[in-house]
Amino acid sequence: MEINRSSISEWLKELQDSICDWLEQADGGAKFEEDNWIRSEGGGGRTRIIKEGNVIEKGGVLFSAVHGDAPVFLFKEQQHSPGADANLGKVGNIPQFFATGVSIVIHPKNPFVPIIHMNIRYFEMDGGIKWLGGGIDLTPHYVNDEDAKFFHSELKKVCDRHNASYYKKFKEWADDYFFITHRKETRGIGGIFFDRLNENNEMSFNKNLNFWKEVGQSFAPIYTELITRNKNKIFGELQKQWALLRRGRYVEFNLVYDKGTKFGLETNGRVESILMSLPKIAGWEYDFKPQKNSEEERTLALLKKGINWV
Amino acid sequence: MEINRSSISEWLKELQDSICDWLEQADGGAKFEEDNWIRSEGGGGRTRIIKEGNVIEKGGVLFSAVHGDAPVFLFKEQQHSPGADANLGKVGNIPQFFATGVSIVIHPKNPFVPIIHMNIRYFEMDGGIKWLGGGIDLTPHYVNDEDAKFFHSELKKVCDRHNASYYKKFKEWADDYFFITHRKETRGIGGIFFDRLNENNEMSFNKNLNFWKEVGQSFAPIYTELITRNKNKIFGELQKQWALLRRGRYVEFNLVYDKGTKFGLETNGRVESILMSLPKIAGWEYDFKPQKNSEEERTLALLKKGINWV
Repeated sequence: MEINRSSISEWLKELQDSICDWLEQADGGAKFEEDNWIRSEGGGGRTRIIKEGNVIEKGGVLFSAVHGDAPVFLFKEQQHSPGADANLGKVGNIPQFFATGVSIVIHPKNPFVPIIHMNIRYFEMDGGIKWLGGGIDLTPHYVNDEDAKFFHSELKKVCDRHNASYYKKFKEWADDYFFITHRKETRGIGGIFFDRLNENNEMSFNKNLNFWKEVGQSFAPIYTELITRNKNKIFGELQKQWALLRRGRYVEFNLVYDKGTKFGLETNGRVESILMSLPKIAGWEYDFKPQKNSEEERTLALLKKGINWV
Repeated sequence: MEINRSSISEWLKELQDSICDWLEQADGGAKFEEDNWIRSEGGGGRTRIIKEGNVIEKGGVLFSAVHGDAPVFLFKEQQHSPGADANLGKVGNIPQFFATGVSIVIHPKNPFVPIIHMNIRYFEMDGGIKWLGGGIDLTPHYVNDEDAKFFHSELKKVCDRHNASYYKKFKEWADDYFFITHRKETRGIGGIFFDRLNENNEMSFNKNLNFWKEVGQSFAPIYTELITRNKNKIFGELQKQWALLRRGRYVEFNLVYDKGTKFGLETNGRVESILMSLPKIAGWEYDFKPQKNSEEERTLALLKKGINWV
C-alpha cells in the first residue's frame, strides 16, 4: 500500500477502533461515546470518551487529522527539522501543514490501577518536512515493581524488534519529558517518548513507520494486562485521598508542561478534546508529607529519572 | 514615617496579621498555621494556611519579602518601566531587585460562598525602578447579583477616594487579566487589577501607596460580609458537583495564565506557597453543558468581560 497522509490517517482510525474495543472489553461496563468535530481552518477529529465504567472513571481515545496554513511559530520551529528546505517560510507563501494522530489518557477508579497515556502522531509540512512522534507513559498511584518491570519490558521488546538503540534513547527521553520540574518529580514511572523520527535518522522512514505502528498496537494489550492484575484490589479512604493528590500532580504536568496541551490551547484547538486528559477529580493539600515508611512515601521516592525498571 | 522597603514590608506583615484575625473570626472554627521559610538567594516569607474550618475549606494568607540578583528575564522586562535607567543591565553588574507582598486565596466549603483572591505587591530594582501592583477578584460558583454589586461598589469606593479614573481603568484591567482565554470565560466577576503604579502615573508615589494600602485593608471587611450573607445557605449534590467544575476552571487559570504562579515556578520559588492557591478538590467533566434555564447556565452566561456590576 502506498504510504501517504491518507493511508496513515486511515490506519490511525482503525487503531482507534481497535483500542476502543479492547478498552470496552477490559472495562466490562461502560461504552465509548463519539463526537465528530470539524476544524474551520481544515480537517477535524473523532473524539471518543468513556466514563463511569467498572474500571475506567474517565478516559478518552482521540483521533484527529488537521491541515492548513502553518502558524508562524510552527514553521519557525520546523526550519531546523531534518530535511527542511532552508527557504521555508521565506518564499512568500504560507507553508501548509498536516498533522494526524491518536491520543489516549485513561483515569481508572481503583487507585491500584495506574493512569496511562499514549500518543502517536505524524506531521508533514511544505519544504520537505515529515516525521513521526509518539510516546507511552504510566502513572501508577502506587508504584508496583512487577507492573513497572512488565510495562518497561514490553516497551523494550517493541523497540528492540526495530532498533537496538531505541529503548535506551526513548526511555531517557520519556524520563526528561514527563518531568514536573517545579516538584522535582517525574509524572510516573515513564515509558518511551520520541519525536521527529524520519528518514534522516538511522533507519528509513518506512522502517520507522513500522516501529511507530507497533508502539500504537502495543498499548491495548499492555494496559489490559495491568487492569486485569489490579482491578479487584481492595482500597480504602487513605488510597482514595492519595490518588486525588497524584491526580493533582497529573493536572500540574498537563497544564504547565505538556507540549501537546500547550500547542492545542495556543492554536485555538478543540478545548474539550485537549482537556479530556484531566481527571474527573483531583486534589491539593498544603505541604502534604506521607507517613514514614508508608507505601505513599515509597512511591514518592521512586518518582525519579534514571531508574532501570527492566 | 519614612517610606522604604522595610517600612512597606512591616506594614504588609501587620496587614497579614489583621486579615488572619478577621478570617478566623469569620470562620469561627479553624485557626491559621504558620510556616516561616527562607529563600537561599535572599529574603523569605511567612506562609499562613487555614483548612477544614466551618466556612473555609482551604486557604492561605501569605507574606513574602525577597531580594537578590534579578533574573535576566526580570530586568529585561523592567527596562521599559517608567523611570528605568536606559543603561539597566548593560553596565556589567547584575541589577538587584526587592519584592514584597501579601497574597490571599480562600476556597470556601459552601458553594454559595464565593472564592476570593487578593494580592498587593511592591517592587524595587536598581536603575530607579519602584512600583506598586495589586488586585482583588471574586469567583462565585453561583453569581449573585446583589453580592456582585456590593463587591464592585466597595472596590469603586476605595478607588474613588483616591482617583476618579482608577475604578474604571482597573476594573477593565481585571476583566482582561482574569480571563481564561481557551474557555472564552472570565474566572469570575472580576474586581480590580493594577500594575506598575508609581510616581510617573497621574499621582505621586505616596498617594498611590495610600490607595494601595486601602485596597489591602478593604479585603477583610468585604469578604467577611460575603461570608455572613451566604455561609448558611443550604446546598446539595448538584451544587457540590458544579462547584467542583468551577474549581477546575480556577486551576486552569492559575496554572496556565496567572503571572504570579508562572513567575514563582520559573524562578524556583517555594512551590507549596505558590500552589496554596489551588483548591482542596477540583473536577473536570467532558463537554459539560448545564441544564437549560438553570442557575448554572445563568452563571456561565455572566462570565464575560465588560459587565457593569455597580
